[in-house]
Amino acid sequence: MKKRIITLTTDFGLSDWYAGVMKGVILSINPHAEVVDITHLVPAGGIRKGALALKSACGFFPKGTVHVGVVDPGVGGKRRPILIKTKDYFFIGPDNGLLLPAALSNNIKKAVELENKKYFLDAISPTFHGRDIFAPVAAHLSMGKGISWFGRAIDPFGLKTTAMPRVKAGKDSVEGTIVYVDSFGNLITDIERDDVKWAWPLTDIEIGRRIIKGIKAAYCDAEEGGLVALFGSSGNLEIAVNRGDAGKRLNIGAGERVCLRKRPGQE
Amino acid sequence: MKKRIITLTTDFGLSDWYAGVMKGVILSINPHAEVVDITHLVPAGGIRKGALALKSACGFFPKGTVHVGVVDPGVGGKRRPILIKTKDYFFIGPDNGLLLPAALSNNIKKAVELENKKYFLDAISPTFHGRDIFAPVAAHLSMGKGISWFGRAIDPFGLKTTAMPRVKAGKDSVEGTIVYVDSFGNLITDIERDDVKWAWPLTDIEIGRRIIKGIKAAYCDAEEGGLVALFGSSGNLEIAVNRGDAGKRLNIGAGERVCLRKRPGQE
Amino acid sequence: MKKRIITLTTDFGLSDWYAGVMKGVILSINPHAEVVDITHLVPAGGIRKGALALKSACGFFPKGTVHVGVVDPGVGGKRRPILIKTKDYFFIGPDNGLLLPAALSNNIKKAVELENKKYFLDAISPTFHGRDIFAPVAAHLSMGKGISWFGRAIDPFGLKTTAMPRVKAGKDSVEGTIVYVDSFGNLITDIERDDVKWAWPLTDIEIGRRIIKGIKAAYCDAEEGGLVALFGSSGNLEIAVNRGDAGKRLNIGAGERVCLRKRPGQE
Repeated sequence: MKKRIITLTTDFGLSDWYAGVMKGVILSINPHAEVVDITHLVPAGGIRKGALALKSACGFFPKGTVHVGVVDPGVGGKRRPILIKTKDYFFIGPDNGLLLPAALSNNIKKAVELENKKYFLDAISPTFHGRDIFAPVAAHLSMGKGISWFGRAIDPFGLKTTAMPRVKAGKDSVEGTIVYVDSFGNLITDIERDDVKWAWPLTDIEIGRRIIKGIKAAYCDAEEGGLVALFGSSGNLEIAVNRGDAGKRLNIGAGERVCLRKRPGQE
Repeated sequence: MKKRIITLTTDFGLSDWYAGVMKGVILSINPHAEVVDITHLVPAGGIRKGALALKSACGFFPKGTVHVGVVDPGVGGKRRPILIKTKDYFFIGPDNGLLLPAALSNNIKKAVELENKKYFLDAISPTFHGRDIFAPVAAHLSMGKGISWFGRAIDPFGLKTTAMPRVKAGKDSVEGTIVYVDSFGNLITDIERDDVKWAWPLTDIEIGRRIIKGIKAAYCDAEEGGLVALFGSSGNLEIAVNRGDAGKRLNIGAGERVCLRKRPGQE
Repeated sequence: MKKRIITLTTDFGLSDWYAGVMKGVILSINPHAEVVDITHLVPAGGIRKGALALKSACGFFPKGTVHVGVVDPGVGGKRRPILIKTKDYFFIGPDNGLLLPAALSNNIKKAVELENKKYFLDAISPTFHGRDIFAPVAAHLSMGKGISWFGRAIDPFGLKTTAMPRVKAGKDSVEGTIVYVDSFGNLITDIERDDVKWAWPLTDIEIGRRIIKGIKAAYCDAEEGGLVALFGSSGNLEIAVNRGDAGKRLNIGAGERVCLRKRPGQE
C-alpha cells in the first residue's frame, strides 16, 4: 500500500504528551502512516495563526497528504468536526476557520461533517477531539477509506471563516497588515506580489513611523542591521532586518498596518 | 518484519542534539524502527512529571511499543538501568520511579536489570545512558530480541517508586493535589472519577480561596473566561478557564491542594 | 530500495512552519526518506553553535546518512550552496562554516557547489534555500544520485571556516573556552581528553573565580548541588552541578575562559 503522510498543526505545545498521543492513535490504526509535524506551537486558541501556518505549508506536501489541524478552543461545544477534500489534499479539524484558508488555496471539492462514530475512538472526551476524533479519522482516511464513510456532505460555502483584515488597494497606494511575526522577527504582511505590481520595486513602505525605500530581493540587499522589505518565501511582502530581528527593532507585532506608496516623482 | 514503535520521553530539551543522537543510535541498529517523541520538555530532573507524561501517553500506542524514558538525574551513579515488560508494552530507563506508574497501569509481567554490554554502545559515557544504554537496548528489543537476553530478572516489587501525594477520601469530601499544569494552563489533579462518584456532578470544588460549583463536561460549559471543573482527557479532575489559562488566573501550580465537598443541602 | 536518513539542523525554531515545509519537500521527492531532527533551535544565525551540534551528533547516524544544515544568515547573497561527501556521510548546506567541523571529523572525500537547477525546486526564493535548494538536493541524493550530478567539484581546502578559539597548552597548564551551554546548564568546553592527559585526574580547574579540584567521572561524584568537572558525552571537558544548573550557578555562558593547572605539589 502506498504510504500516506498525515501532518499535524496544533496549539498543543511540546511540553505535554498531547501531540505524542495523537501519533500513537494514528499509528495504532495505520502503522504505515508517516506523521509529520508542521508545528505544535500555534499560540493557544490562535486560529488565525494556525490557519496561516497550514495555508503556508500544505502545498509543499505530496498529493494525497492528510492535513490535520487542531486549534480548537470550542472543543466539546457546538462547532462541527469536519473533513474537507480539495484537489490534492484532505483537511481534518474543527469548523472554526482554521482549515478554510488552506483548503480554499487548493480548490475545495467536497466537505463532510464527521459523524460516523465507527471511525472515532470508543470513548470521546469532550476536551480532546484531536485524539478521539481527528487522529483516528485521519488514520482511517490515510488507509484509503472514501470520505463519504465519515459523515454526510455539507455545503462548503457554509464553512466558518475567520474575519481577516483586507488589503486596501488605492490608485497610488496599498494598505495591508502584519499578519505574522516569525521566530526570526520577520514581519510578514498580507500583501502579495500582485497587489503592488504597479510600482514594484520603486515603492516606499511606511511601517510604524519609518519609511523603507524600495522592495529588494534578499535580506543581504540591506547593509547588516538594516531594514529591508522583500517578498518572502510565502510570496508575501515581509519587513526584515538583515541578520537581525525586525519585530524587536521596530517593536511591532501582528496587527500593525503597513502602507506602500509610489515614490514621489515616480512614473 | 513488523515495524516496531519506540517512544521517547526525556528532559533533554529540544535545543541540544541529545534527542537526535538517540534516534541516530536507534536507527543505526534497527533501520525499520519508528521513533515517536512523547516529549523532551520534561523539566530537568522532573521524575514525577515525566512519569505522569509516560503514564498518560503510553496506552494510546500499539501493542508491542517500546517506551523509553530518560529523566535521569542519577546517571552514572548506583541507580539501576532497567527494562520492564508489561501486558502490552516494554519500558526502558533508569530505576528511579520514572517508569513504574506507567508500567503498573499496564500490568507488569517481568523486569530485568540491563547488564549485557553486548547490547550497549561500545563506550559507555557516565553522563549519557540514554544514548549509550537505553537507545541501543530499545533498538535491539524492537528487533524481537527476548528480554532475558538483556540481563537477569529482578523483583518488580523492588523497583523504585516516587512518593506521590495521596487522594484523601472522607465521608463528605475528597482532598487531592494539582499534579500537573499543562501548556494551556489547565490544572490537572490526581482525583479520578471514581473518587467522587458519590456526589458528582453536584460538588463544590475549593481551590486557592475560590469555590467552583459543580463538575461540568466541557470547557465551554463555563462562560468565556470563566472557571470550570471537569474530567479531562486523562480521566482526572481538571480545573480550567474556558478559552483562558487557569494556572495564570489563579496563580497556582503543581502541588496545590484541591478539596471537593458535597454541596450544602445536597443529599 | 534501502531507506536513507536525512537529518535537519537549523535555526528555524519550532513555532513556524519552515521545518515542516522542508520535510514536505523531501517526502514529495523521496517518499521513502526518513527525516530526523537534530535540532531546529540553534540561535538565529548561530553558525558556531549549529556547527557544534552537527559535529556532535553526526557520527551517531548510520553510514550513508544525509546531514542537512541550515543556519544561513547570508541566504540569497554570495555564499555558495554546497555538498560535501565524507567517509560515511553527506553534508548539505551553505558554505559558511556550519558544515565544515562535522565534515572534517569524518574525513572529507569531495565537495561540490550546488549548481544544477534540475534538482532544485522550480522557483528559488532568495530567502529560503533550505526549502528550495537544500531539501530537494538532499532528497535526490537520498535516492542514490551521484554527487557529481549536483554541480562542479570545488576545492575542500577553499571551504569557509569559522574562527574558533584555540586551546592553549602550556607546560603545566591548559587554557580553553566554554563553547556551549546545554539545556541542563552544563558548560561544555573545547578541551579534549588528550589536552590534559599529563595531569588527569589531579587537575585544578579555574573558572570564573572558582577552583574545582580534580576531574571526576560522573555528575554524582560531587555532592548534590556541588560543582563537578568531567569529560562529558561528547568527549569534551564539561563543568556541571550535580542535579543543578552550572550556567545559572556561576552566571557564566559561552565564551568564558577555563584554565587547568597541575595541582601544587603534584608530580
